Amino acid sequence: MKNRNFITTQDFSPEELGRLIFRARELKQGGVQRTPLAGKSVALIFLNPSLRTRATMELAVRLLGGTPLTMNVGTDSWTLEHREGAVMNAGKTEHVKDAARVLSRIVDAIGVRAFAGLENLEDDLADPVISAFARYAEVPVLNMESALYHPMQGMADLMTVTERRGSTRGVKAALTWAPHPKALPTAVANSFLLAATRLGVEVTVAAPPEFPLPDPVMRLAAGNPGKVRTTTRQEEALAGAHVVCAKSWGSLACYGRPEVETKIRSRYADWIVDDKKMAGAGDAFFLHCLPVRRNVEVADAVLDGPRSAVYDEAENRLHVQAAILEAIL
Amino acid sequence: MKNRNFITTQDFSPEELGRLIFRARELKQGGVQRTPLAGKSVALIFLNPSLRTRATMELAVRLLGGTPLTMNVGTDSWTLEHREGAVMNAGKTEHVKDAARVLSRIVDAIGVRAFAGLENLEDDLADPVISAFARYAEVPVLNMESALYHPMQGMADLMTVTERRGSTRGVKAALTWAPHPKALPTAVANSFLLAATRLGVEVTVAAPPEFPLPDPVMRLAAGNPGKVRTTTRQEEALAGAHVVCAKSWGSLACYGRPEVETKIRSRYADWIVDDKKMAGAGDAFFLHCLPVRRNVEVADAVLDGPRSAVYDEAENRLHVQAAILEAIL
Amino acid sequence: MKNRNFITTQDFSPEELGRLIFRARELKQGGVQRTPLAGKSVALIFLNPSLRTRATMELAVRLLGGTPLTMNVGTDSWTLEHREGAVMNAGKTEHVKDAARVLSRIVDAIGVRAFAGLENLEDDLADPVISAFARYAEVPVLNMESALYHPMQGMADLMTVTERRGSTRGVKAALTWAPHPKALPTAVANSFLLAATRLGVEVTVAAPPEFPLPDPVMRLAAGNPGKVRTTTRQEEALAGAHVVCAKSWGSLACYGRPEVETKIRSRYADWIVDDKKMAGAGDAFFLHCLPVRRNVEVADAVLDGPRSAVYDEAENRLHVQAAILEAIL
Repeated sequence: MKNRNFITTQDFSPEELGRLIFRARELKQGGVQRTPLAGKSVALIFLNPSLRTRATMELAVRLLGGTPLTMNVGTDSWTLEHREGAVMNAGKTEHVKDAARVLSRIVDAIGVRAFAGLENLEDDLADPVISAFARYAEVPVLNMESALYHPMQGMADLMTVTERRGSTRGVKAALTWAPHPKALPTAVANSFLLAATRLGVEVTVAAPPEFPLPDPVMRLAAGNPGKVRTTTRQEEALAGAHVVCAKSWGSLACYGRPEVETKIRSRYADWIVDDKKMAGAGDAFFLHCLPVRRNVEVADAVLDGPRSAVYDEAENRLHVQAAILEAIL
Repeated sequence: MKNRNFITTQDFSPEELGRLIFRARELKQGGVQRTPLAGKSVALIFLNPSLRTRATMELAVRLLGGTPLTMNVGTDSWTLEHREGAVMNAGKTEHVKDAARVLSRIVDAIGVRAFAGLENLEDDLADPVISAFARYAEVPVLNMESALYHPMQGMADLMTVTERRGSTRGVKAALTWAPHPKALPTAVANSFLLAATRLGVEVTVAAPPEFPLPDPVMRLAAGNPGKVRTTTRQEEALAGAHVVCAKSWGSLACYGRPEVETKIRSRYADWIVDDKKMAGAGDAFFLHCLPVRRNVEVADAVLDGPRSAVYDEAENRLHVQAAILEAIL
Repeated sequence: MKNRNFITTQDFSPEELGRLIFRARELKQGGVQRTPLAGKSVALIFLNPSLRTRATMELAVRLLGGTPLTMNVGTDSWTLEHREGAVMNAGKTEHVKDAARVLSRIVDAIGVRAFAGLENLEDDLADPVISAFARYAEVPVLNMESALYHPMQGMADLMTVTERRGSTRGVKAALTWAPHPKALPTAVANSFLLAATRLGVEVTVAAPPEFPLPDPVMRLAAGNPGKVRTTTRQEEALAGAHVVCAKSWGSLACYGRPEVETKIRSRYADWIVDDKKMAGAGDAFFLHCLPVRRNVEVADAVLDGPRSAVYDEAENRLHVQAAILEAIL
C-alpha cells in the first residue's frame, strides 16, 4: 500500500482493509516496537475543529517515530482556494495547488480535514478540498474527514466490530439517523456504510424519509460484498442487529436551505437512541463517532451503559491510523 | 504521589509539597538526567489563553522525554459541556465526560486550563470544569489554572520563596490586591495563599473592603500551619514582609455585575505597587505571576528593579511542573 | 555567528551570508547528520498567519534535534504591548518586555512574526515588535517576517539564485511590483532587495510611481555591493534579467488611507506577470515567496510553467533556516 492516498475505503480491497485492521489490533496489543516514521514528518491540515482526530493523528505519527506538523487553516495559516484556474481577487489567500506542492517538498504525507460546506450538494459530492489536495500533492494524502468521507473513522468502527465479534463475517449492523440541533455532513455515515459493506457486513440504514444518504454513496455500497437495506422505521433496523451505529446528518432534500431543513429535522426528535430502543436490538453493542449531543442524539443511559463501545471506538482511531501510516509511508 | 490528580495544593501534605519543591530545585540545578515520561503523552487542554503555562508545560513534558498534545478548546477542538445529564441541544458540542474518557484512553495525564466564568459566584466556587475532568478522567488531571486554583503557580511562587529565603520557615508574606482594567478571577491569589500557609508562611492579605478572597478559601487557609491575617490597609501588610506578592482580582461583592464592579474597582487605582510602597517593605522581594499590566498593577520601577523576582518565578514554573509530572506519572 | 540575532541580512557580511547559503545547500544535499539543537528549544511566536514559515521553522528545529514551541499571540497567548513605559490600562494584556524575558529563561532562541500595521509609516519603519523582542530578549531573536524585513525569505531566494546560476556573481534580477486585492507590507520585497544586493546581485526594482520601496531600505541597498536601479516600466526591468522576483506591496504614498490606496492600486491590474511578459525576460527563472494570488499577481502559466522556481524557493526556506539555526545556536 506504499505511497497511496487514503481518501476512501473504496480505494482499498477488502483484503487490504482486513490486513490494516489486523495490524491495528497487533499494534494495540503489543505496543509499537518499531519507528518506521523516524526522520519523517506528516502535515495535519485542519479546516475544521477536531479533538479525536487531532489527538490520535498527532500521537500516531509520534508513536511511529515521526513528526506531526499541525496547522489550522485560516488562523494558523492562510485560507485556501481550491478551484483550478481561479482568479484569486477575493477572500481566499492561497491556492491548494501551492499549499499542497510546498508541503510535498518538506513533509512525507499530508492529512486534511475539510468538512462539507452544506450549501451546494453538487459541490460537496465532488469532495472539492480533499480532491484538490490529492490532485496537487506529490506525497500521500490522508483523509481526516472530507465533505463525503471519514475513512479513518470507518476503519476504527470496523476494527471495533472485529474486536467484539471476532470478525466481520455474518455481522448485521443498524446505521441509524439521530436527531441533532444542527444539520451535519453525511461523511461519517457514508464511511461507516462503505467500510462495513466492503468488509461483508449487512447494513440496514434507518432514517426519516427526508434524510437519505447520497445516491452515489448508496450505489458504491450496493457494489460492495455486504448487503444494504434502507428503512424509515428505526426499530426495524435495530431488530436483529449485532451493532447499532448512530449518527446525525442533514436533510439532502433541502440542502442549503437551513430554515426549511431545521423545521423538518425538528420533527424527528423521537429518533433519539435510548435504552428502550436498544432493548429492541437484542445484545447489540453501540457505536457513535463522537462528539455526541447527549440526550439529544443518544441518551446518557446508552452511552454510559454496558453496551456502549464508543470509547473503544475512539481509542481504535489511534491504532488504525498508526497501521495506515505504517502501511503507506 | 503516583497517579494522583494535581488540582490544588490542599490535596498534598506540607511534606509532599516540600519534597516537590526540593526536587524542582534539583532539576533546575542539575538539568534533567532521566526521561521518566518516555513513551508517555500528556494532553494540555486550554479553554483560555496562556503563555507561561503553555510554554512551560510543553517544555516540561518534553524535557522528561514525553509528548505533549496541546489543544485549544473551541477553536482546535469542540466546545465543552460539563453539567451531568445535560440535554445538549444548545451551543456546547461535546461533553467533558466524553472528552475526558477518550483522552484517558490515549494519553497518560490531562492538563486543563479553565478560568472562572465570573458570572455566578456559586458556579465558580464549585470549580465546575476541572471538577468534571477529575470526575470523568481515568488518568491524572493536572490543574493549569481553574476557576478557583492555580496550584502550579502557587508552587512556583513558594519555590521562589525557598530559593530566596533558604526555606519557608519564619517567612512573612504580603499578598496585596492590585488595580487592573478588568475584573479577574481569584485563582492565583487563592493558590498563593493556600500554598504559602500550607508550607508555614505567615500571610497578610491586603485588599479593599469589597475585594475579599472567597470564604471557603479563607477557611482552608486558616486550617493550614501558617497564620493568615487580613487588612484593608496595604502599607500595613507590606511592613515587615519578606516577600510581597501582588495580584488583581474582581470584587466578590458584586460578582456578575460588571458595571457596578468596574465603578468600585476604579476607586482603588492608588493600590498600584510602586517603589515608594516597596520602600515600606524593608528588603522584601517582589512576586507577580504575570502577565502584568505595567504601570497599572505594578510600576515599571518595581518590576524592572533589583527586588523583582518575577522572572525567576516564571522560570520556576518549568522546574516545579517537571517535578510534579515526574512524581505523578 | 553564535548568539547573534537574525533580524536583517544587513547585520551579516556578504561572506557570512554566503557561508550560510553554502551550508544550507550541504544540508539539502546530504540531509542533516548532526543534532546541534539536542536539548534546546526555540519559541516560535506568531502575531500573524503563516504556512511555509510555521512548517519550515518547526521542521528545521526538529531536524536539528530541538523542540519548537509554537504560539499564536492573542489566541494561544496574550496580546502584546511593545511601547516602553506604557500605562497598560487598555486592550493589550502583556508587555513584550515580560514575554521576551520569560521566554529567554526557558528557550534558547525566539522566532517572531509580526507584520507591518500598515496604518502609520513611521511606526512600521521603526519595526517596533521585533525591535522590542530584540531589546528585551536575552537569547537570539530570529525574524520570521517583521514590519520591514523577511530575511529568511530573502536568504531562501538567494539560495535559489545560487542553485540556478552557480553563484550570485554577475546575476541581474528584476524585482517587480505585482497587483493584489489588498495592500501588503514591503517586508518581502525589502529583504529580497537587501539580500540580493548584499550578495552582489544587480537589482532593478520596477513599480508604479506611487509604489516606491521605503527610502531607508533603498539607502541600505545602495550601500551594498550590488547595483540598484529603479524604473516605473516593468518590461524594462525584465529585459536582460536572469531572475524575475514578483511581489505586491501597498502604496507608501497613501499609507494608512486604505480607500485612496485601493483606488490607486486598482489602476495597475495590468502589472500581472504573465507568459508574454516573461518572454521579454529571456530565459530568466521566476520567484515568488507565496502565498500568491493566482491570475491576479501572476498568471497560472508562469507559476506552473518550466521557469517557475517557486517550490524550490519554498523548500529552501527549510534548509536555509536550518543553516541559520545551526550557526546561531
